[in-house]
Amino acid sequence: MAQVKNILFIMCDQLRQDHLSCYGHPHLQTPHLDALAARGVIFDRAYVQSPYCGPSRMSYYTGRYVHSHGASWNFVPLKAGEMTIGDHLRPLGVRSVLVGKTHMRSDLAGMSRLGIDPDSQIGVRIAECGFDPYERDDGIHPYSGHDPDPTYSNWLREHGFGGDNPWEAWTNSTVDDEGRTRSGWFLKYSNRAARIPDEFSETPYITGRAMDFIREAGEQPWCLHLSFIKPHWPYIVPEPYASMYTADDALPVKRSQEERRDPHPVYGAMMNHRVSRTFSKDGVRETVMPGYMGLIKQIDDQMGRLFTFLEERGLMETTMIVFTSDHGDYLGDHWMGEKDLFHEQVVRVPLIVVDPDPRADVTRGTRCRALVEAIDHAATFLDVYGGPPVPHILDGRSLRPFLFGEQPADWRTAVISEYDYSFQDSRVELGTKPRDAWLRMIFDGRWKYVLAEGYRPMLFDLQTDPDEFADIGASEAPEHVQARQRLHEALFHWARQPRQRVTIPDGTIESIEVQPRIAEGGILIGYWDEDDLAQARQHFKPRFASRNPLVKSTLDRLTTTQGEPHDA
Amino acid sequence: MAQVKNILFIMCDQLRQDHLSCYGHPHLQTPHLDALAARGVIFDRAYVQSPYCGPSRMSYYTGRYVHSHGASWNFVPLKAGEMTIGDHLRPLGVRSVLVGKTHMRSDLAGMSRLGIDPDSQIGVRIAECGFDPYERDDGIHPYSGHDPDPTYSNWLREHGFGGDNPWEAWTNSTVDDEGRTRSGWFLKYSNRAARIPDEFSETPYITGRAMDFIREAGEQPWCLHLSFIKPHWPYIVPEPYASMYTADDALPVKRSQEERRDPHPVYGAMMNHRVSRTFSKDGVRETVMPGYMGLIKQIDDQMGRLFTFLEERGLMETTMIVFTSDHGDYLGDHWMGEKDLFHEQVVRVPLIVVDPDPRADVTRGTRCRALVEAIDHAATFLDVYGGPPVPHILDGRSLRPFLFGEQPADWRTAVISEYDYSFQDSRVELGTKPRDAWLRMIFDGRWKYVLAEGYRPMLFDLQTDPDEFADIGASEAPEHVQARQRLHEALFHWARQPRQRVTIPDGTIESIEVQPRIAEGGILIGYWDEDDLAQARQHFKPRFASRNPLVKSTLDRLTTTQGEPHDA
Repeated sequence: MAQVKNILFIMCDQLRQDHLSCYGHPHLQTPHLDALAARGVIFDRAYVQSPYCGPSRMSYYTGRYVHSHGASWNFVPLKAGEMTIGDHLRPLGVRSVLVGKTHMRSDLAGMSRLGIDPDSQIGVRIAECGFDPYERDDGIHPYSGHDPDPTYSNWLREHGFGGDNPWEAWTNSTVDDEGRTRSGWFLKYSNRAARIPDEFSETPYITGRAMDFIREAGEQPWCLHLSFIKPHWPYIVPEPYASMYTADDALPVKRSQEERRDPHPVYGAMMNHRVSRTFSKDGVRETVMPGYMGLIKQIDDQMGRLFTFLEERGLMETTMIVFTSDHGDYLGDHWMGEKDLFHEQVVRVPLIVVDPDPRADVTRGTRCRALVEAIDHAATFLDVYGGPPVPHILDGRSLRPFLFGEQPADWRTAVISEYDYSFQDSRVELGTKPRDAWLRMIFDGRWKYVLAEGYRPMLFDLQTDPDEFADIGASEAPEHVQARQRLHEALFHWARQPRQRVTIPDGTIESIEVQPRIAEGGILIGYWDEDDLAQARQHFKPRFASRNPLVKSTLDRLTTTQGEPHDA
Repeated sequence: MAQVKNILFIMCDQLRQDHLSCYGHPHLQTPHLDALAARGVIFDRAYVQSPYCGPSRMSYYTGRYVHSHGASWNFVPLKAGEMTIGDHLRPLGVRSVLVGKTHMRSDLAGMSRLGIDPDSQIGVRIAECGFDPYERDDGIHPYSGHDPDPTYSNWLREHGFGGDNPWEAWTNSTVDDEGRTRSGWFLKYSNRAARIPDEFSETPYITGRAMDFIREAGEQPWCLHLSFIKPHWPYIVPEPYASMYTADDALPVKRSQEERRDPHPVYGAMMNHRVSRTFSKDGVRETVMPGYMGLIKQIDDQMGRLFTFLEERGLMETTMIVFTSDHGDYLGDHWMGEKDLFHEQVVRVPLIVVDPDPRADVTRGTRCRALVEAIDHAATFLDVYGGPPVPHILDGRSLRPFLFGEQPADWRTAVISEYDYSFQDSRVELGTKPRDAWLRMIFDGRWKYVLAEGYRPMLFDLQTDPDEFADIGASEAPEHVQARQRLHEALFHWARQPRQRVTIPDGTIESIEVQPRIAEGGILIGYWDEDDLAQARQHFKPRFASRNPLVKSTLDRLTTTQGEPHDA
């Protein structure tokens, strides 16, 4: 293998880590992803910075915690000016391109204030998380608010799948036993086949579009964000995937009656969400799982198609491949649907990285247990292209040492995930103000501590309680009290890190002797007299000598002539 | 008096609160500012967000903590995109104009990335903290890095004060007993008169420029930031001010040998700064104080000139006047020079506010003891012009309730100040990394707690130790331990506030029922079947009905026809 020229950054939406066979699923075989993993590294403990699409993705794209970038939910635009992967790689000659979903909402007000035309190249990049969009497709047409009649809809029509909303009519519909069309929005139909044939459904379409881009890309290095809409709901998949799995193939549900007895108020309110109540009913999960699993199997098959395509073009030798997800899915575990809390099913995601660099040969086919985060991707990509680290901007760190079999001595000892539940019914139910509707999780590999504004914290000990059934956030056991105190303090340390000093590199501060430079620049602070200055200047290094002739002559005069005649 | 049309936002640089007679100085009489105070409110406990020029000013101009805006020192540009007073007032028809100093460093890299021409109107505003510069003048010419040959230098030349650097030769120079020119940079000459006559020195010049602007301003409401360079060093003033005060008129120095015994490491390193060592020598403070006091007296006289000018034009009736400073000055107190820590001499600043609104009549001539912060100004100005509060952007709050004699029930109980000492010799001496060279102060009116990364905290009890001589940061007395724990936790609460979710107002989140709206928009999460949806829709309010005909028809179909024939 050779040096990395391109990066293929593949993201699924709402894919649970435990739903790939290389992560241990007993019935859902994902041979293409398993083969990918065999050529690279499986990260066992990869965590996302938020359990929700928008904020999690903005953390992937900016390499910054939600606390840093502020786009804390799907409707919250990422600020114009926040740097993204695209901004970091562009000066290195790399084109960052999008095919698929970002869930980005444009900061139109910010662009207007800054005089940026949304239709200009810079404006489009700001609206697309810094990527050049080859094709943006957020799915669930036309409701996503991004493009009411996207390319995919037109493509469906061209192939005979017509109507005002062909996605709804074909891709997102099934036919019931009485021959009536039924919408994939309803969970009841998740175990039935979509009307659309496989090759015209979303995952193959988007895969094909990525291949189109790669075919056309030319010689410039690229970082392609191939971002699938699936296996995110609506949970409906065409044949043959629709019939591949039954409820018996699903992992056993993880929920305990204990969890419903006196739950933490926020958890209680989350269990009260419509989707949680629905998934807690008998039969719902059993109906949904075949669809969800089928969607994943379809992705794996498309990965096979894509990897073959890359191999045929010799691109496997020069392309770093990253496969991950923006978060998981409760699917009825813990009496929850969707993804509003921090259980492992949601915040721990699959992450497979194949680095063609020969230095990565030592780790191929291995698993890495380091605590890694979504924010590490931007730093990794920058590292791949030889960019200097920019810790004043990127909260994450390059994963490359792990790929090369190294263990950084000062690697993080805990991961962070945040959730702004302002927009959820749970906030309304609890009567919390939007400013206070925040949860922050810190997990050190054993203890998972969740700070909930206005409420007691939650705590789980994954060593004694790997299923996270017992919230010991109120326990008075000394070990639990200690763990809470320690993680509370660690969270404070994290929260107060300077993450907005992004306009000056740490290295600039470190590399210069600021004060001598200020003095040699003519700003004389705390000097009593000319002798004082003359003495100090002997210790200034010549490189600090001002290049401003006016400053230099003044300084020289101040230290040599001991004052001039009045009228000089 | 009438409603506010204009705001005159006057800032001094490095002016200590205790150096005005209305704040109790026994010898330095400031009758014009005292008269201003008699017409408005004196804030006794106004604190700045950083003891240093740049970060403090950026907090004034953005209404945000340093933790929020990130421009943590003089060399750190404020991010392009950070909103300022100018950005908040412009949509309300108010012109925000600068005369004088801002200490702003342009974010040229950010502008370049966003495609903003630094010479465009928006580019200039970004470079000037959101103000339209009538005249920018940061002083200490030509060293400030802003404009090597500013208007002031040319004006001096036009009036016969020539040379390549007329500021240095005339404004910043004196003549010694032997007739030799000596530089005002040297503290030794602070008690001698500047060569420049009073009317051509900086404070009168800048005052005159503000008057020029006001004369030319026309009918559009304005917010004029009149920002003096003085009494900031170089501490040199022309006659008659140079001879007005002797060392005997100065406040007694506040320092104790106790402070030098085993000081906190960061304080110890700060006491080791050149300026601190110089000011700790016998005779230095005594030499400097006459110059510092003269500069303040000169400002007060210029205030008299300015207020007379406003009165003559009837502008006093329609202009809110704010008088404050960006921070104080140790001047030898606590064995320190400059302003690198959080003693009252530095972080507590003068603040006088005159609001011509009749509702403020009840408070004229009174003092307010509320804990107010520099960040409150932006919110106050927005409030004055009737703009809705924007707590998602502004960390501060309007001071107007206090001016109207009200006491907000939920006013803050502590103030915060931060200091990034990365650029100081103390960091080099301590071997601290730039990322860790942070101090954060929280003061609740009695206890002042300073969290120092990598070191024990500092603590002062201003009730029993108003001079702040006894650092009880390591004391094991239960009361001290408790105070530290409480303020540590309060600082954590502050640090984790969401301050980057600036692209969506809290009110937008509060005012809508997000989840019904999402469902009515066609995104159906957690619905089992058509009945489930039909039932839920009965509870949606009509205003949530989608205006997108495609969405509406789909939704209606999903809830009324119970499925359509296959080929419909």
